[in-house]
Amino acid sequence: MAILYFDEAEVGRLRTAGPYQVSKDEIIEFAKKFDPQPFHVDEEAAARSVFAGLTASSAHTFAILISLLSKTQPFSLRVMAGLGFDELRLPAPVRPGDELGLEVAILEKRETKSHSDRGVVRNQIHLRNQKREIVLQCIGTVLVARRPVASS
Amino acid sequence: MAILYFDEAEVGRLRTAGPYQVSKDEIIEFAKKFDPQPFHVDEEAAARSVFAGLTASSAHTFAILISLLSKTQPFSLRVMAGLGFDELRLPAPVRPGDELGLEVAILEKRETKSHSDRGVVRNQIHLRNQKREIVLQCIGTVLVARRPVASS
Repeated sequence: MAILYFDEAEVGRLRTAGPYQVSKDEIIEFAKKFDPQPFHVDEEAAARSVFAGLTASSAHTFAILISLLSKTQPFSLRVMAGLGFDELRLPAPVRPGDELGLEVAILEKRETKSHSDRGVVRNQIHLRNQKREIVLQCIGTVLVARRPVASS
Repeated sequence: MAILYFDEAEVGRLRTAGPYQVSKDEIIEFAKKFDPQPFHVDEEAAARSVFAGLTASSAHTFAILISLLSKTQPFSLRVMAGLGFDELRLPAPVRPGDELGLEVAILEKRETKSHSDRGVVRNQIHLRNQKREIVLQCIGTVLVARRPVASS
């Protein structure tokens, strides 16, 4: 797999990862630790909730996104650090048995004034289920290494 | 602990939760599952990274924020659903031994046109370490239940 420097990252280029299989056990185990609300940990209570069934914690969905982000094809970026996330939305819930796929498109790139060895890349990120519904979308901003200048 | 309806949520009111003790084992365990980069899972590799030591995955830091969000004092809100997060930034890393505390302030509230039983609340959220450095900040937007109207 190609790991691209900032200089090689073309605006508009798409990369993908997945599928990530979400099991009931994983949903319950994650939620018990970080988000133990009835509709995340108890099937019977979840059946009576607005979602009419068990759903993953938003923190779990975000963790799955992060896990796929480092496995994109046909390329990934030489990320030095994550700067942040904007406009993060969770339009549909993640349920047991879902197969999630990640789509990342480079929205924008810009050089940094302070450091010549790196640049800033903004990525539009969509995580979708097997029905192509978006379960999480956001804009992720990262620092990406520039290609080292060969010394003469 | 008071659980407030939308009608009782006053703009500017602050609520807090924590501390959450972050252990080295928890950082490594979480990262092995969701973000197995050397500086999250391997102490020796982490010592040579830009952070000069093991740091938590951003997904882990976000999960800790979510876990504290439902435990705020002196009140919490009757949240019906999370709508999203904006301007999420990670200004400082989380390290083994850190004690994290959450501060949440109500930024804005507005009624919804489509449903009379709920309103939208925007919260300014800061997660800080024991040195009061911000490790994660964002604006979280939630649907909050309105006080039921007594039938006459």
